[in-house]
Amino acid sequence: MNTPNDPPVSKNELVRREDAVLERIAAIVGRRNVPLGEVHVGDDAAVLAPFVGEMLVSTDVAVLGVHLDPALFPLEDLGFKAVASAVSDLAAMGGRPRAAVVAVCSPPGTDLEELHRGIADAASSTNCPIVGGDLTRSKDVSVAVTVLGETPGRGSVLRSGARAGDTILVTRPLGRSAAGLRRRRAGAPLSDPLVIAHRRPWPRIQEGIAARHAGAHAMMDLSDGLGIDLHRLADASGVGFVLTEIPVAEGASEQEAVSGGEDYELVITTSDPQRLLRVFAERSLETPIAIGLVVRDPGLRTWRGEIFTRDGWQHEL
Amino acid sequence: MNTPNDPPVSKNELVRREDAVLERIAAIVGRRNVPLGEVHVGDDAAVLAPFVGEMLVSTDVAVLGVHLDPALFPLEDLGFKAVASAVSDLAAMGGRPRAAVVAVCSPPGTDLEELHRGIADAASSTNCPIVGGDLTRSKDVSVAVTVLGETPGRGSVLRSGARAGDTILVTRPLGRSAAGLRRRRAGAPLSDPLVIAHRRPWPRIQEGIAARHAGAHAMMDLSDGLGIDLHRLADASGVGFVLTEIPVAEGASEQEAVSGGEDYELVITTSDPQRLLRVFAERSLETPIAIGLVVRDPGLRTWRGEIFTRDGWQHEL
Repeated sequence: MNTPNDPPVSKNELVRREDAVLERIAAIVGRRNVPLGEVHVGDDAAVLAPFVGEMLVSTDVAVLGVHLDPALFPLEDLGFKAVASAVSDLAAMGGRPRAAVVAVCSPPGTDLEELHRGIADAASSTNCPIVGGDLTRSKDVSVAVTVLGETPGRGSVLRSGARAGDTILVTRPLGRSAAGLRRRRAGAPLSDPLVIAHRRPWPRIQEGIAARHAGAHAMMDLSDGLGIDLHRLADASGVGFVLTEIPVAEGASEQEAVSGGEDYELVITTSDPQRLLRVFAERSLETPIAIGLVVRDPGLRTWRGEIFTRDGWQHEL
Repeated sequence: MNTPNDPPVSKNELVRREDAVLERIAAIVGRRNVPLGEVHVGDDAAVLAPFVGEMLVSTDVAVLGVHLDPALFPLEDLGFKAVASAVSDLAAMGGRPRAAVVAVCSPPGTDLEELHRGIADAASSTNCPIVGGDLTRSKDVSVAVTVLGETPGRGSVLRSGARAGDTILVTRPLGRSAAGLRRRRAGAPLSDPLVIAHRRPWPRIQEGIAARHAGAHAMMDLSDGLGIDLHRLADASGVGFVLTEIPVAEGASEQEAVSGGEDYELVITTSDPQRLLRVFAERSLETPIAIGLVVRDPGLRTWRGEIFTRDGWQHEL
């Protein structure tokens, strides 16, 4: 329907325009070679060949001004981050991405092609083709991404599987995304490596698959920060934890590492950390870092011997 | 992040509140009995048992004020329509719904429970459980729904399969939704049968499955109206058509039937209409109505011997 400032146009003309925009966008996000037997953009629904193992599905929405500050970052980053954070949910289960669909809301005048270039970049980096979408008018710019994945060879790794005695590991030092945001606010260029870590989060797909094959007990991705997400994992598993070390990324502060969020590194628990390290090494993946142990008492949650509160910063409360 | 008018609250508190809202919503939309081996709301991604046949996926977004006038309809109708129109895309392929995820954007103060009651109603009526979701803050209220379906026994029916000589049928007389909107604008109560047809569209899932099993050549759902959608089907198939009759629902005008939209009836083409009618009858489904024939020339598109333009109303141009 029309917003009040539009000149009146026929429904026919609106539909024509919409179809034309959709075609341009399909050219940006569409896959060049659609596998035999599959149908992507263009029909009522996309048709995909059967999945292997379980089917994983997750949805994530990113809103301009909430998840991305348009004064600091280009619009394509919103598209990239929306897809990357959704794909990271698959990585967190040990899933292999198979496909994504995107529903975009935007006011007239939005550069939809720029937005979809970010979407297409993330889809292509994560090997998660965009197979369908929807486009509508609204006051906000928002991108809702739904991703589908599969788990060949072994079932997915839930949050709820951590057991007393498990070693807790993370896939990389933490805090890069928060440090990048801080640096960008202080005037660092978009090409600054930490700013890029914030703009272009990299879902740990291969690491998640490796952890699943190595028999990890529990796993999740760090979207809100270890100080919140580790509690969620512990709550889901009904356990506590004793943290020794929290690895801080170069250029980040300890607080950024604990409560910064948006790192999208994985936190993994396993009773056999040696096996996990071996599987990671065999696949030439960066060595995960042990940060502590799972304990039986769900009320016992410490870091360096002190209580680790839900955001990790007791002294802030 | 906070909008300017919020009192400052800690991130920890925001996350707690979000988790509490998510729990209340999960209680509204969540399925009581999750099948063995599946995981719905609560982990990074939902885990579903393997699908049968092809995997169908479609996404649809509904925005308050664009897809639903809040002065005329309750908020729960937005949730209902968002899910129903997405499920209708599965019906249009002959798919059986398996699961849906919903991403909701809303400003503070939105009655999220009312919105999700509409979502839950549609999910339950269409037997399409909500297995995951996301919730974020924005200026608009929007609901992005992604639905997943399967096609046991036979492949899905595309838009592109219509062949010269096919009979074209629709599942019911058309125009009810547009007539309901007109009646509501004129003061009819929410309980008026035509108003309900607008508020609570009913995806033709069983009809779509029946048409697939009956070997239909092409199918789509009528979301923008026959005057637009039939051209899309003809374009995708590279054919034309000769329409004889367009069935008008009781209480609707001819124009509403042709270009009203949101009826979500199916348009079907088949070379064996007798078989289609037989399969529908065997399943106690309402008899579909023949409206014309597919012809080879993609430039020949007529109704009652006159040119049928893209919105069906040549005299309006």
